[in-house]
This record gives sequence, C-alpha cells and structure tokens, in this order.
Amino acid sequence: MDIFFLGTSGSIPTLKRNLPSLVIRREGELYLFDCGEATQIQIIKSGLSLAKFEAVFITHLHGDHITGLPGFLMLLTQANRTKPLYIFGPPGIEDFIQSIKRTINFYCEYEMVIEEIEQEKVILDKKEFYIETAFCDHNVLTFSYAFVEYDRPGKFYPEKAKELGICPGPNFKKLQNGETITVNGKIITPEQVVGPPRPGRKVVYATDTRPSENIVNFSKDADVLIHDGMFSAEELKDAIEKGHSTAEGAAEVAKAANVKKLFLTHISSRYFSTKLLKQEAQKVFPATKVAYDLMQVSVPFSDQEGDSE
Amino acid sequence: MDIFFLGTSGSIPTLKRNLPSLVIRREGELYLFDCGEATQIQIIKSGLSLAKFEAVFITHLHGDHITGLPGFLMLLTQANRTKPLYIFGPPGIEDFIQSIKRTINFYCEYEMVIEEIEQEKVILDKKEFYIETAFCDHNVLTFSYAFVEYDRPGKFYPEKAKELGICPGPNFKKLQNGETITVNGKIITPEQVVGPPRPGRKVVYATDTRPSENIVNFSKDADVLIHDGMFSAEELKDAIEKGHSTAEGAAEVAKAANVKKLFLTHISSRYFSTKLLKQEAQKVFPATKVAYDLMQVSVPFSDQEGDSE
Repeated sequence: MDIFFLGTSGSIPTLKRNLPSLVIRREGELYLFDCGEATQIQIIKSGLSLAKFEAVFITHLHGDHITGLPGFLMLLTQANRTKPLYIFGPPGIEDFIQSIKRTINFYCEYEMVIEEIEQEKVILDKKEFYIETAFCDHNVLTFSYAFVEYDRPGKFYPEKAKELGICPGPNFKKLQNGETITVNGKIITPEQVVGPPRPGRKVVYATDTRPSENIVNFSKDADVLIHDGMFSAEELKDAIEKGHSTAEGAAEVAKAANVKKLFLTHISSRYFSTKLLKQEAQKVFPATKVAYDLMQVSVPFSDQEGDSE
Repeated sequence: MDIFFLGTSGSIPTLKRNLPSLVIRREGELYLFDCGEATQIQIIKSGLSLAKFEAVFITHLHGDHITGLPGFLMLLTQANRTKPLYIFGPPGIEDFIQSIKRTINFYCEYEMVIEEIEQEKVILDKKEFYIETAFCDHNVLTFSYAFVEYDRPGKFYPEKAKELGICPGPNFKKLQNGETITVNGKIITPEQVVGPPRPGRKVVYATDTRPSENIVNFSKDADVLIHDGMFSAEELKDAIEKGHSTAEGAAEVAKAANVKKLFLTHISSRYFSTKLLKQEAQKVFPATKVAYDLMQVSVPFSDQEGDSE
C-alpha cells in the first residue's frame, strides 16, 4: 500500500504546493482523496495509471478540494475509460458535477456512480478492505476517510502440519482456510498449524478539521494519519476560526490515537519553510513528517519492516 | 505591451505544458485570455500582480479553456479584491460561473460583470485601445479576440514650431492635441509641426480554430498573431475533424493576414518535441515561434526596434 501526495497546500497554491489531493494505491488499484485544481497535472507527473482509478472521495465542497474534479473526469474520458467511476462526497457533490457537465457539456463515456454521504458509515466494503467516514470539525460538513484492511489469515506453518502427520494437499488448504480436519482419527484445528491473524493496515485522511475527539477515536491505532496541519502555534486563533489545526494540534490527535506515523498536510501558503510546523508537531509526536507534493510513502504491514519514501 | 503565455497545451496538460491561458499586459493592467485548469498556479509562477487584472476573455466553453476560472475567481477573493472584474465569453458562461458559485458556495466580495457575447463586435472600448471579437471556425461557438491600440498622435517637433515663431507653452500643447492656432496673424496647422499618427499595436488570439478567411481578415497587419497550431501536417484529418489547425495552416493564416509574428499555441500533448511543428510553419511563414509555458513576449511599436523574450 502506497500513498501519493499530489497536492499539499491549503486554500491557495504556492510555487511548491498544489491544492489538496492524494492517492492511495493498493494492489495496483488507485483511490483518489480530494481533487483540488491541477490534480490531473499532478497525476500525470506522478506517472500513475489512469486506468487504475476505482473511486474518488471528496472531503467537503470547498473549492480548493474539488475544482480539479471536472478536469480529472474529462481526463478519464480522454483516456477512453468505459468502466464506472465511484464518487463519494457530501450532499451537493452530484449537483456540482452535473452542473458542470451541463454548462460545459462535457462528454463522459463511462458511468459516474455518485453517492452523497450524510452520515458516518462504511461507504465501500470490499473483500479485503473497507472505507469508512467520520465527521471532521470544520466550518462546513466535512468527512474524514479511513482506508482499513481486514485482518489477513495467520501464517501457515507446513512443518508443524507435517509433524502432525498431515500430507501436503487438500488438507493443507482446508487448515489454511480455517477449517478443522480429522486425520487418522485425530482432530486437527487450524490454530495448531496457523499463526494468529495478521492485522491489516489502516490509513486515515482528516482535513479540513480542527483537532477533535471524534478523529482521535476514528484514527485509533492507524498505521498512518494524514491530518490538517495548516498553521503554526502562533496562528492558533486563525486555525480555530477557520476550522483548521495547528501542527501541534494534529500531533496531539496522533498521540492520543496511538497512530504509528503522522503526516501534516493542507499547509498554509504563508509558510515558505515548514521547519517550524515540523518542530512544533515533533515535540508532541516525534513520528511526524510534513507532506510535500509528489511525496510517496509506502505503508508496511505491522509484521514487516521499514517503509520507504 | 507584453504577452505572458501561461498555458500552451491543448485539451490535455503535459509535463511541460498547462492548459490554455495567456495574459496581455499593457500599461501595467492585465487582461486574461482563457483560463484553463491551473491558470492560478501559472499566474503565481509568473509573478503577475493579482490586483492588476481588469478583465477575462473566454474563447469558448470547452473544459480545457475554462476549468481554471473558479480557482482564479477564488484567488482574487483571497487577494481581497473589491473592484469589479469584467468577464466576457460565449452564452452559457454566466450559467457556468453561477452554477459553481452556487454549488460550492464560494464567496466573492467583488462584483463580477459578466457579458455573454453572441456576435462579432467591439466588446470593450477604452481611451487608448479596444477589444474586438470574431468568429473562429471550431466545433462549438468560439471567439477570437483582437487587442487593438488606437493610433497615437504623431511625434511633435519643437524645433519646427520654434522656427515658425511659436514659443513653448500652451500653443505647443494645442498643436500636440491637433488644434490649429494663429500666431502673429499666421495660421499654423498641427501637420506643420507634428508627424503622422503612429500606429498602435495589434495582438490577435485565435484558438480553437481551423484556418479561416474570417481570421485572416480579423488579423490583418497584426503585430502578433497567436494561433491554434495543434497538429502537424500528418494529422490534418484530425485537425479538420476536431476543429483545429495544423502548424502549416496557422502559418498560411499569418502569411495571408500579413502579420509580423506568429506564435503557435494549443499544442497537442502527442508532441514531445515541437521541432516538426516549427519547421512546417516556418516553411510558409518564417517569423513563427512555438509558444511555451511562462514564455514572455514584448510587443514593440512598429516605429520602435526589436522585441524581447
């Protein structure tokens, strides 16, 4: 599982940062979160395959998070997409898309399956993972998204099975699938030859938002939390008023949620350097990084080692 | 007068080219022509002052020419604009802007004065220049825009005036303003001390369009013609079908219109190098350049020398 930060600015783009957008790639499939202006350009720069996009998730209907959507949808048409694209976002997103489609008359060969979300719930449930929403604390209805893998089956130990007199073949498979078998009159349970379930990975994207208890609970034990870190401590008043977090506030959420890593995003255009934001956050939560445009982050399983950027 | 090419790609952005947009700067004031996605980012990169934008002119309502408009309008709000912004474009542009304003609820402190154009006419007439439209030959209603300076008064020769017995002062000013005066019973006409009117500059922007007689007439004797040069000669069929020009076709227009310089824009994403386009155009019209993103071109008066890029 990899995260591609496409745009890491907040509200106003800068020479170095485009408007909010990121992609989670899992088993080759791509999931787009927010679609600020120039997202299509950042996708081209990142080299991600247009054919692999499965769904789009919009946090809220502020312009900086959504004005790249028409261009992205048109780019998929240019790339000859025919399979459906799933689009999730707060109420109003369908009106936004259909209004643009109508007024600039853009042609869309593929089906857009648009779902307006009003509540906290699981919005996509696949065999190996699900995507869930929670309310952010912003000035308009805003959703945080969690990308959560189901636990994988435990590791199978063929040596242990052989010691118990089981031959490789269908019985191996049954045990791996969690079935109890009988061999030579002996009952063998999967637990005897299969390790405990291995936890899946969890990535949470929460912007725009003030630090909130709700997001702490929603991010519990996440491998990665990507959180609004728009301002430095000096701008706390601005952050509260505008519905954003300071770097420190984001770090408090990460610490309370016991996440493994925190990435700050939605960085205000006023910061030419993010050194201060990083320092303020790391005092509270050392495993903090400030995301940058086209940054790529691998999310390892907790039973595997290391990551790469 | 300077031209800033902000985006020079057609339909699809590339690693090097953003979607269509350019600025004409005259006496410090800025006029934006087309507003493809990421125009606001290109404006930031170009260092142009947001406070100096006077008006926006949209050629047509295809997405690649207009999806940057919401972001640009929001950027002006962020820059605390209060003076009106004039926006011109084909019918439907008001619906586009108002639909986005409504669906994403963006706040606009300043007034947007939107005028939908249906005919060829002078749409803006200022003291020193005017802006006029003409029909392009595209697949939807598309306007070419000409930015035309009125002739400036001829050069005043104070020595000649003194020889005729006129003293520096109010009489000088009258002659410079084209008034006939009487000095010591002698009638002095402005023509005796002022050179012929000096021609203003003319810049024409014509994309998206097939080569057309109408644009030839509209571009007559322009200092600069910026023309759709999307395809090479090999793709002539595509150009005709999609309502675009080959580089050669654009050069034919430039030659027939007797313009001074031609800049090709709206370059197809299929060309990694534009060498071929340049060669094909220069065979017909040597004073051709292929525009590139953030290219800046000065347009000198015809009685002045040189230009700079």
